[in-house]
Amino acid sequence: MVRVLGIDPGSRITGYGVIDAYRGQCTFVTCGVIKTDSGAPFSHRINEIFDGINQIIQVHQPVVAAVEDVFVSKNPRSALKLGQARGAAVVAAMQNGLAVCDYSPRLVKQSVVGYGQAEKGQIQHMMKLLLGLPKQPSSDAADALAVAICHANQACF
Amino acid sequence: MVRVLGIDPGSRITGYGVIDAYRGQCTFVTCGVIKTDSGAPFSHRINEIFDGINQIIQVHQPVVAAVEDVFVSKNPRSALKLGQARGAAVVAAMQNGLAVCDYSPRLVKQSVVGYGQAEKGQIQHMMKLLLGLPKQPSSDAADALAVAICHANQACF
Repeated sequence: MVRVLGIDPGSRITGYGVIDAYRGQCTFVTCGVIKTDSGAPFSHRINEIFDGINQIIQVHQPVVAAVEDVFVSKNPRSALKLGQARGAAVVAAMQNGLAVCDYSPRLVKQSVVGYGQAEKGQIQHMMKLLLGLPKQPSSDAADALAVAICHANQACF
Repeated sequence: MVRVLGIDPGSRITGYGVIDAYRGQCTFVTCGVIKTDSGAPFSHRINEIFDGINQIIQVHQPVVAAVEDVFVSKNPRSALKLGQARGAAVVAAMQNGLAVCDYSPRLVKQSVVGYGQAEKGQIQHMMKLLLGLPKQPSSDAADALAVAICHANQACF
């Protein structure tokens, strides 16, 4: 059994999802979002992401982090912000001794919906279904669970 | 007297420079670069930046980090990499309780050379001159020292 932390990084909202993977079966552990204070300086916001991921790791003790390769917009300024959020999340995982694996949004969607262009709502729906959740997780939490499941599928536990 | 850590983030080479600032006078403490292993996975490389900055802070105990706002190229893919390097450096500073201040490359150049479009060589030359160094620091280390001096000038210690 391997406990996987999925992360969908973003400078405003970072989604996280933790699952246990065992022989192709995925069991839900937790999911949620880290919302950063939009009024705070940007350096504080990315530090909040580091602290948030750090805390989740301390509490749930995953051994591997699967991180979504952030979507590269056409806007370099946005890419720079997203990059900093992603850097904070990855470093939090690495500092806790987790292995870090990257997955493209296309592969994640392919893996959980069977279609690389799937829309947000489909991911939420499939996460509820696959993990037997009482209700749909938020979009960002669902994306994070999806990248965790994608890792479980790729790594074939 | 305030000890300032200047950082010029980059995914391949991150420059750092430490100075003591007191009443407009800047005294050199140390400078150098963190070179990341180009053969390693990207997540390892940004973790090396975190570890490197963390170590410099532990050894030299600066109280504030001045970080150069990375140059935004037209290429979002490059911006994303730079962003992750910057995120790792900023989080290392924040986790050690340092204040973090951002300065644009233009303001840094203006501050140390008096001209916002100054070339790399000029910054190196001015750092040698201003800090009385025996030889020119490398380009990345010089840029990091320059952002530290820029902070000292802006903050008017």
